[in-house]
Amino acid sequence: MRLIDGKQIAETIKQEIAGEVQRIKDQEGKVPHLAAILVGEDPASETYVNSKARACKQVGFDSSTYRFPVDVTEAELLEAVEFINNDPEIDGLIVQLPLPGHIDNQKVIQHIVPEKDVDGFHPVNVGRMTIGLPSYVSATPNGIMELIMRSRIETRGKQCVILGRSNIVGKPMSLLMSRNEEPGNATVTVCHSKTQNLGEVTSRADILIVAIGQPEFVTADMVKEGAVVIDVGIHRVPSDKTKSGFRLIGDVRFDEVSEKASYITPVPGGVGPMTIVSLLMNTLKASKKEIYG
Amino acid sequence: MRLIDGKQIAETIKQEIAGEVQRIKDQEGKVPHLAAILVGEDPASETYVNSKARACKQVGFDSSTYRFPVDVTEAELLEAVEFINNDPEIDGLIVQLPLPGHIDNQKVIQHIVPEKDVDGFHPVNVGRMTIGLPSYVSATPNGIMELIMRSRIETRGKQCVILGRSNIVGKPMSLLMSRNEEPGNATVTVCHSKTQNLGEVTSRADILIVAIGQPEFVTADMVKEGAVVIDVGIHRVPSDKTKSGFRLIGDVRFDEVSEKASYITPVPGGVGPMTIVSLLMNTLKASKKEIYG
Repeated sequence: MRLIDGKQIAETIKQEIAGEVQRIKDQEGKVPHLAAILVGEDPASETYVNSKARACKQVGFDSSTYRFPVDVTEAELLEAVEFINNDPEIDGLIVQLPLPGHIDNQKVIQHIVPEKDVDGFHPVNVGRMTIGLPSYVSATPNGIMELIMRSRIETRGKQCVILGRSNIVGKPMSLLMSRNEEPGNATVTVCHSKTQNLGEVTSRADILIVAIGQPEFVTADMVKEGAVVIDVGIHRVPSDKTKSGFRLIGDVRFDEVSEKASYITPVPGGVGPMTIVSLLMNTLKASKKEIYG
Repeated sequence: MRLIDGKQIAETIKQEIAGEVQRIKDQEGKVPHLAAILVGEDPASETYVNSKARACKQVGFDSSTYRFPVDVTEAELLEAVEFINNDPEIDGLIVQLPLPGHIDNQKVIQHIVPEKDVDGFHPVNVGRMTIGLPSYVSATPNGIMELIMRSRIETRGKQCVILGRSNIVGKPMSLLMSRNEEPGNATVTVCHSKTQNLGEVTSRADILIVAIGQPEFVTADMVKEGAVVIDVGIHRVPSDKTKSGFRLIGDVRFDEVSEKASYITPVPGGVGPMTIVSLLMNTLKASKKEIYG
């Protein structure tokens, strides 16, 4: 079994980006700039936005956070998006989700110009990805594709089974893994809550991507000997063995599945560290106008 | 075996639409209006555009065809699209593809406002379909979903195998069949030219959707007893048994596969007649502003 070390791979990519930023800075002066909109004071959202800002700093990006109170109106948020859309200094904009209940998430996201939508959530970017045009691919699927590519895992002609059909992981992963390009060219099956004989389906997978949001759902008997296992889940469970009183686990029962897998991502330190890095990659693309010219 | 009679189902839908149009006419005066842009004199394109216009007439829609010579410039076409975008009389616009080589198909399609893109080819509509928002679904997948629904074929929890990963059939079918809605909720596998052990995969299908573009590619040994088989292919082959000197066949070897299938679409008269009807359905939705409000 080989561990797919997302933390290490993420570090490598950050260094590559930092080098590129230095080069851009020397030659053109302007560095990539990521803006975030943060509404309210949800601690998890604060943490995410702060780590994104820290990651920007690490690679030499500019970053800014636009903070709004929890009772901000939808109109005010749309205005802020509009303002950032029109600011030539800013290359990428993310809106930290979820927004408060009185605000229409989709309306705000669709207000971001696709050129700055580095989260890849705008229907134009989703649609372009679906039909194979250049687009911003959202952070998790983009990160998984990088892990697969940089671990030199062959995907062509392989049976790939994806557990979960969410908009942010399952669906884009199925499109990316079955596209006529490599990594890709796999025979992809998408499973979900209505799938019957699930263990039978997952046992056929050469590559198993698990994004089902249930702690340690995938057990060894569901996995083929030698399979590549990508675990997207992350759950906090109580533990008396750690100082913090909790530990992190994934959607896969790591101890037993890792004994059968040829490659596996740990939790933490697998897919997780790749998401912020993906966002940096998209922001770099935005600043270089690689997607929309 | 039960034949899925696309011709009959298409007729039924046309009558439903005609009834609805009559009601709209009586109550509001304005009838749905479909416009088509046709470039050059390709006989197949002429035929398609003419049958669309005829179908419009049948159900009481207005229709118009904007014809351009083969040497029309891209700028002129974009201007025409713009003009139709802004015409409040016109509800839906299709651009007959392919366009001549000097014109960028995607650029022209992306110039249509998503609200009038009744072919469902604009990235905004593709993206909205992908993430499960209301959208215009393109003609063939929309037609297949209608066939499945109106034949009361159960899809929930079924194994669905799709042969082909094209933007206009395979990809949207995979998204629609696996969505959390019915028809849908199937466990979907997408196969393509790089798929290994294809016959083994197709033999597992409760529902087999074939859009691979190869005459009589699917033979009885590739199909499970009792499967539902949807044949999207259409090919013209020489025949000494018809007056015209040719006959139409699909991607499925109908004679032998029909003996194993529980339901099967014939060629011609299966999926084919549904495509124009889907376009009418989308145009009706456009005139009622059902998708974009």
